[in-house]
Amino acid sequence: MKAAKIAELLGGKLSGNPDTEISRLAEVQNAAGDEISFISNPAYEKYFETTGAGAVIVSEKFAVKTERPELAVIRLEDPYMGFVTLQEFFHRQNAETVREISAKSSIGEGTTVGADVHIGDFTVIGKNCSVGKNTIIRANVTIGDGVTVGDNTHIESSVTVYHGCKIGNNVIVHSNTVIGSDGFGFARDKEGKYRKIPQTGIVVIEDDVEIGSNCSIDRATIGVTKICRGAKLDNQIQIAHNVEIGEDTVIVAQAGIAGSTKIGKRCMIGGQAGIVGHLTICDDVIIGASVGVTKSIVKPGMYMGYRFKPFKEELREEANIKDIPTLKDKIKKLESIINKDK
Amino acid sequence: MKAAKIAELLGGKLSGNPDTEISRLAEVQNAAGDEISFISNPAYEKYFETTGAGAVIVSEKFAVKTERPELAVIRLEDPYMGFVTLQEFFHRQNAETVREISAKSSIGEGTTVGADVHIGDFTVIGKNCSVGKNTIIRANVTIGDGVTVGDNTHIESSVTVYHGCKIGNNVIVHSNTVIGSDGFGFARDKEGKYRKIPQTGIVVIEDDVEIGSNCSIDRATIGVTKICRGAKLDNQIQIAHNVEIGEDTVIVAQAGIAGSTKIGKRCMIGGQAGIVGHLTICDDVIIGASVGVTKSIVKPGMYMGYRFKPFKEELREEANIKDIPTLKDKIKKLESIINKDK
Amino acid sequence: MKAAKIAELLGGKLSGNPDTEISRLAEVQNAAGDEISFISNPAYEKYFETTGAGAVIVSEKFAVKTERPELAVIRLEDPYMGFVTLQEFFHRQNAETVREISAKSSIGEGTTVGADVHIGDFTVIGKNCSVGKNTIIRANVTIGDGVTVGDNTHIESSVTVYHGCKIGNNVIVHSNTVIGSDGFGFARDKEGKYRKIPQTGIVVIEDDVEIGSNCSIDRATIGVTKICRGAKLDNQIQIAHNVEIGEDTVIVAQAGIAGSTKIGKRCMIGGQAGIVGHLTICDDVIIGASVGVTKSIVKPGMYMGYRFKPFKEELREEANIKDIPTLKDKIKKLESIINKDK
Repeated sequence: MKAAKIAELLGGKLSGNPDTEISRLAEVQNAAGDEISFISNPAYEKYFETTGAGAVIVSEKFAVKTERPELAVIRLEDPYMGFVTLQEFFHRQNAETVREISAKSSIGEGTTVGADVHIGDFTVIGKNCSVGKNTIIRANVTIGDGVTVGDNTHIESSVTVYHGCKIGNNVIVHSNTVIGSDGFGFARDKEGKYRKIPQTGIVVIEDDVEIGSNCSIDRATIGVTKICRGAKLDNQIQIAHNVEIGEDTVIVAQAGIAGSTKIGKRCMIGGQAGIVGHLTICDDVIIGASVGVTKSIVKPGMYMGYRFKPFKEELREEANIKDIPTLKDKIKKLESIINKDK
Repeated sequence: MKAAKIAELLGGKLSGNPDTEISRLAEVQNAAGDEISFISNPAYEKYFETTGAGAVIVSEKFAVKTERPELAVIRLEDPYMGFVTLQEFFHRQNAETVREISAKSSIGEGTTVGADVHIGDFTVIGKNCSVGKNTIIRANVTIGDGVTVGDNTHIESSVTVYHGCKIGNNVIVHSNTVIGSDGFGFARDKEGKYRKIPQTGIVVIEDDVEIGSNCSIDRATIGVTKICRGAKLDNQIQIAHNVEIGEDTVIVAQAGIAGSTKIGKRCMIGGQAGIVGHLTICDDVIIGASVGVTKSIVKPGMYMGYRFKPFKEELREEANIKDIPTLKDKIKKLESIINKDK
Repeated sequence: MKAAKIAELLGGKLSGNPDTEISRLAEVQNAAGDEISFISNPAYEKYFETTGAGAVIVSEKFAVKTERPELAVIRLEDPYMGFVTLQEFFHRQNAETVREISAKSSIGEGTTVGADVHIGDFTVIGKNCSVGKNTIIRANVTIGDGVTVGDNTHIESSVTVYHGCKIGNNVIVHSNTVIGSDGFGFARDKEGKYRKIPQTGIVVIEDDVEIGSNCSIDRATIGVTKICRGAKLDNQIQIAHNVEIGEDTVIVAQAGIAGSTKIGKRCMIGGQAGIVGHLTICDDVIIGASVGVTKSIVKPGMYMGYRFKPFKEELREEANIKDIPTLKDKIKKLESIINKDK
């Protein structure tokens, strides 16, 4: 694809060779002559002078220090969004189109499958399920009885969806994620032994949700565990029973949300953060990476709790914290001396 | 099922319409007319006046503010245990009874399978295994050679059990959990390269254990990694080689226990907690969520370590901690002035 | 195998019965008469007097308190390395040798498979892949199109490798790990909705890497996510898009590395540690367990950040930290009094 054609696709202004042939995108520091890169983050501006790329997308305001006439330069208001558009364009061009229901899959009685659906080898779909049109379910997936999966949804290999759960349209679920396993609920009897509380609710994944690999989303004890429209979950996230994740909320890898907690819309939960059970987090809250949240949050804003420092500094601070009571004593003594003096 | 029948089943006292037909349990705030709810937590008492449920279980002491004669009210000493009993009752009624060994599974030579066992499609069981009676092994499971699985045990889809491991009776293992993968053991040679230490031990899961989804339980280097009778593990838990988890101990999601650590009986380990290797934690210890445990614990009790606060408060505290040395200097100066004055 | 033969194999000096028959290794505190143990850690020296083992490996300097003439004792400079060598020896003896390509697997068009390869039941390998010689791919594995896997590599059950990824020689990947799932990348549009950025890069796993169970290694947005030669990853580790892990670096369970971060050679990252995105960690850095790293590290050394204490001590310290501003006020007051006095 010629550089001129790409500039036209993105609505940008081209300088340099319009006939440069571009095959794909690449990182600016590693790109070759048939590749296009972009510079958005100022830290990468230095690579303009050295990049091996055949073309590069920069912002309208980008100041060229050293002219590189052989480089096709495309100027855009937002180079990052130009990169995203181009990624989508190349991705669509390369997307596979094979759709078939494997003879090596196993589909239960009463299950209906829409048009243009792909079901991979050794995938099991239970009884009385419904799979919408244009949906891709890869190999070695296990779907329980009575599950519904919407249209244009992708379920990657080795995912498990337990019986009765509901997955919407345009949903992506990455490999080895488990949806609808039992919530962690036990009642302790008089001898201190645990009695399992049956978990009879379901999981509902609404439209436009993406869920990473190796996540666990437990079914509700009764009622519903719900991931609302547009929410995005990274890898290795734990969602306990009866949790609700609001629309367009983003959760970064390895975070965990304990039982019955409700998270509002447009929140961002940092990686490895933990939120205890039975809380309510309002809309538009940002929780920092690794923060442990122990109280409900009613005010939008940023909540952090990170402590990172070299080992020696940590030890010194720990010692200082331990010295506070001694300081208090010394101050009290000084005060009593001075007051006596008065 | 009529409300009167449910009251009888639970041994409770009924007021209101005994003929109300109940089909299932539901959360009190979301229930419909053919559903029964319970109120145990005082925070939910307010829903008594507005619930759409046809019946509700309350405590014997529950004070009704607004009479609702159309509602069937069942009074019990412990409404929560009544809810558990009812969950179990409805769950048993709906539990599937199909038991078959799928023709699409693969079972190795020398493996014996008890009566009333279910083995799902595309499940692989190795050679010389033994599966007890009444056990359910779902689809896409992989079990290595020489594994024993007891009676009445449930192994959900895509679980892996490596060769030689032993799983007891009445055990539940949720999807995508891995039992018996190699422990993380390497010896560093003189050039700083790592040499793998073969992990030749096994994992033993005793009776009545439940393990959530996406857990990792490593085999011992030599000897046994053991999960003792009645222990309950939530999702995404890491159990390293040669760990032992005591009877009736509960571990919440995303916690990790490092190699050779022994945890006592009836402990509760909070979510995302981490316990370093080669420690001993005595019986009846409670470890808070996200706590990192670096020393053995010899005294039962509660161990916490949580710091959560709004970002500004965190920054302020950090600055204050950094100021402690300056405060010390000032106090020393004051002391010397005052002492000189004397 | 006789004790004398083992002493010869390890190059050690034997005392006691040279004809003791040894069948396997065992922990010194649990060993039986046909088992051999080792004592390396001084904490285990006490077991010399009570062990039921038939033979025991000790250091050349080990001082025997109570003679045990019936015990075969092998003295070595480094008993731990002797144990490793013996583990390797017994492990090789017991290693299975069956190699077959299961008729119940599914291998795509254009895929080539080397000599002495094992492919398990219900494993799917896509089109145009290449699998090197002597490689073992177990049951229920899913490998996408265009993947290359090297020689002598072990891929355990239910692993997923997405299309286009490259895995080297002598690599071990444990069960349910996911390699090449989409990186977590979204662009927020003007209405606050997220638009997925296609992830078109790949993952490269170089030679001699071991990866534990339930790990997630995301493909690059563009370019490569790379695990370099000799790196060792424990279980449940999250590696985000475009991360690079240096040669011979070790990462302990449940750690997470955010997008585009580069980690140097011979680093050790503790369990549950988190490293935020776009950082550079230099060679030979040790990050403590649970530490959150928020800045690049340019100096080799140890970085910790652990706080663990009994609940009451934690509460007391928290209260003391909150008292610092009051102390500052008091000091200021004392200073002003004293200065006025002058």
